[in-house]
Amino acid sequence: MQLIDGNAIAASIIAELKSQVAALPGRKPCLALVRVGEDPASVSYVKKKEKTAAEIGIESRVILPPVTIAQAELEKLIDDLNADPTVDGILVQSPLPKPLDELAVFRRIAAHKDVDGFHTLNLGKIAQEDDTGFVACTPAGVMELLARSGTDLKGKHVVVLGRSLIVGKPVALLALQKKAGANGTVTVCHSGTADVAALTRQADVLIAAIGRAEFVKGDMVKPGAVVIDVGINRVADASKKTGYKLVGDVDFAAVSQVASKITPVPGGVGPMTVCMLMQNTLKARRLAAA
Amino acid sequence: MQLIDGNAIAASIIAELKSQVAALPGRKPCLALVRVGEDPASVSYVKKKEKTAAEIGIESRVILPPVTIAQAELEKLIDDLNADPTVDGILVQSPLPKPLDELAVFRRIAAHKDVDGFHTLNLGKIAQEDDTGFVACTPAGVMELLARSGTDLKGKHVVVLGRSLIVGKPVALLALQKKAGANGTVTVCHSGTADVAALTRQADVLIAAIGRAEFVKGDMVKPGAVVIDVGINRVADASKKTGYKLVGDVDFAAVSQVASKITPVPGGVGPMTVCMLMQNTLKARRLAAA
Repeated sequence: MQLIDGNAIAASIIAELKSQVAALPGRKPCLALVRVGEDPASVSYVKKKEKTAAEIGIESRVILPPVTIAQAELEKLIDDLNADPTVDGILVQSPLPKPLDELAVFRRIAAHKDVDGFHTLNLGKIAQEDDTGFVACTPAGVMELLARSGTDLKGKHVVVLGRSLIVGKPVALLALQKKAGANGTVTVCHSGTADVAALTRQADVLIAAIGRAEFVKGDMVKPGAVVIDVGINRVADASKKTGYKLVGDVDFAAVSQVASKITPVPGGVGPMTVCMLMQNTLKARRLAAA
Repeated sequence: MQLIDGNAIAASIIAELKSQVAALPGRKPCLALVRVGEDPASVSYVKKKEKTAAEIGIESRVILPPVTIAQAELEKLIDDLNADPTVDGILVQSPLPKPLDELAVFRRIAAHKDVDGFHTLNLGKIAQEDDTGFVACTPAGVMELLARSGTDLKGKHVVVLGRSLIVGKPVALLALQKKAGANGTVTVCHSGTADVAALTRQADVLIAAIGRAEFVKGDMVKPGAVVIDVGINRVADASKKTGYKLVGDVDFAAVSQVASKITPVPGGVGPMTVCMLMQNTLKARRLAAA
C-alpha cells in the first residue's frame, strides 16, 4: 500500500509555483483575501493562505471589513476589486457572518478573478473542457493527487461518493474529461443511492466526499483500488486535549489494508487546497497579461 | 413492454404550451431563427421549428443572411438580436457553412436568450441546480419523456452512454439533481469505458447517446429496465427508396423484449427537441417580463 502524501505533494507544487512566479515578467500575482468577522477557523485559514502566498512570491492583500458591513457595501468592495487591474484573484472567506448573503457576494466576483472556482461560468467550463476557467480548489487538488501519485484514470471506473457543487460534481466532470490522465468512466453516488457498497466495490478509483465519518469500510472497497478521502470530520476523542480527532469519510485503518494507494486524513487532500488556490492565482495573473 | 411515444408526448406538450401562450399577457414570445445557406437538413429543421412555433402561438422571425456573410457581420446580427427587446430566444441553425466559426457565433448569443442551452452559463446552471437557465433541448426532452412515462429516477441507477456536451453530460447532471423525479445514481460510460456491458446491465434506466447504430444489444440490458434511445443513425437499407433507414443506438427488436419501457427511433426523443425549444422560448419570454 502506498500512502499518497498530500503534504509532500503540496510542498513540491509550492516549490514549482515559486520558481514560476520568480520567472514571471512584470508585477507579481496579487490575491485579495476578504475576511469579515473573527470566526477563529476563518482567521486561521486566511493566515495560512497569506503565508503560502508569501512563500511563493504572490502578493496578498488582506481586506478586513467591519463585521457590521452592509451587503451593498460588501458588494461595492467586490466591484472595486473586480475593476482593480492590480488584483488577479479574489477570495471571500466562507462563512460570512449573518445576515450577509454569501451566495450573492460570491456571485459578484468576476469570473476571471474567481480563483475559488465557484462561478457558474467556471463550472460550465469544466463541463465544456474549456481550460480558460478556474477549477475549485478541492476537486483540482484531488486531480493533482491522482496525477502525481501516478494514477491514470483512462479505462478506470471512478466512483465519486457525494454530489456537492464544491467537490462531487466538479470532480466527476474532471474525471470524465477527454484529456490525458482523465478519461475515466464515472459513477456518482449520494445519500439517495440504493446500494452504495455495490457501487463502491466496483471502483478502481474511489473518491469519498460525503461528509460522514469513516463511512467507507474495508468491505466496500475493491482490493487494489486507489482511495482519495476528501472528508474532514470531527469525532469525539477523550484522549485528545481538544476532545476530538479529525477523521475522513474513509475508515483508514481498514481500507488501507485493501487499497493500493490511499490518502490519509489529515495530510491528504487538505494541504492541496491552498496550493491549488495559489495555482489559480498565478493562472489569473497569466490570463490578465495575455 | 410499454412504448414511450415521443410523438404523443410532444403533441400534449405542444397543446399545453399553446394554452400557456394564449394566457400570457402582453406580446407573444418571439424566437429568432437564423439560418445561413441552403443545407437541405437545415432548411427542413428550421421549417419544422417555424411550423411548431406558429402552432403554439410563438412568433418566429426567420433571418436568412447570405451564405457569403462575414463572421463579423454575423456576430453583429447576433448582437442586434441580443439587444432587441422584442426577441426572446435566438437559435442559429447548425451547421454553419465554412469558413464561419460556429462556436464563436453560438457563444455570442446572450445567455438569457440562449434557448438552445449551449451557453457555458446555462450548462453551469444545470450543475448548480439553478432553474433560471435553459437546458439544451435533447437532454430536456429525455427528462420529459422519463417524467411523462412515469419513471421516477429516485433510488435508480441511471447509466448514460456517451459524454457529449449536448446530451451525455447535461442529462447526467439533470438525473443527478436533487429535485423530484431526478435524484438518480448516475454512471457515464463512453468510448473509453473498459467494460460497457457490465455497466449497462446494471442500469435501471439506460440513456443511449453514443451515435453508434444499434450498439446496445439485448444482453446488455437488465430485464425491466427503462431505455431511452437518443441515437439517430442512417444505415443502408436497399428496401427503402432513400437507400437507408434510421436506427437508434439501441437494437430495438432485441432490447424491446427485455426493457419495461423503451423509446422507438424515430418517434422517441426526436419529436421532443422542437417542443423543448418552444418551452425554452416561452420561459425566456417569462424571464424577460419578470
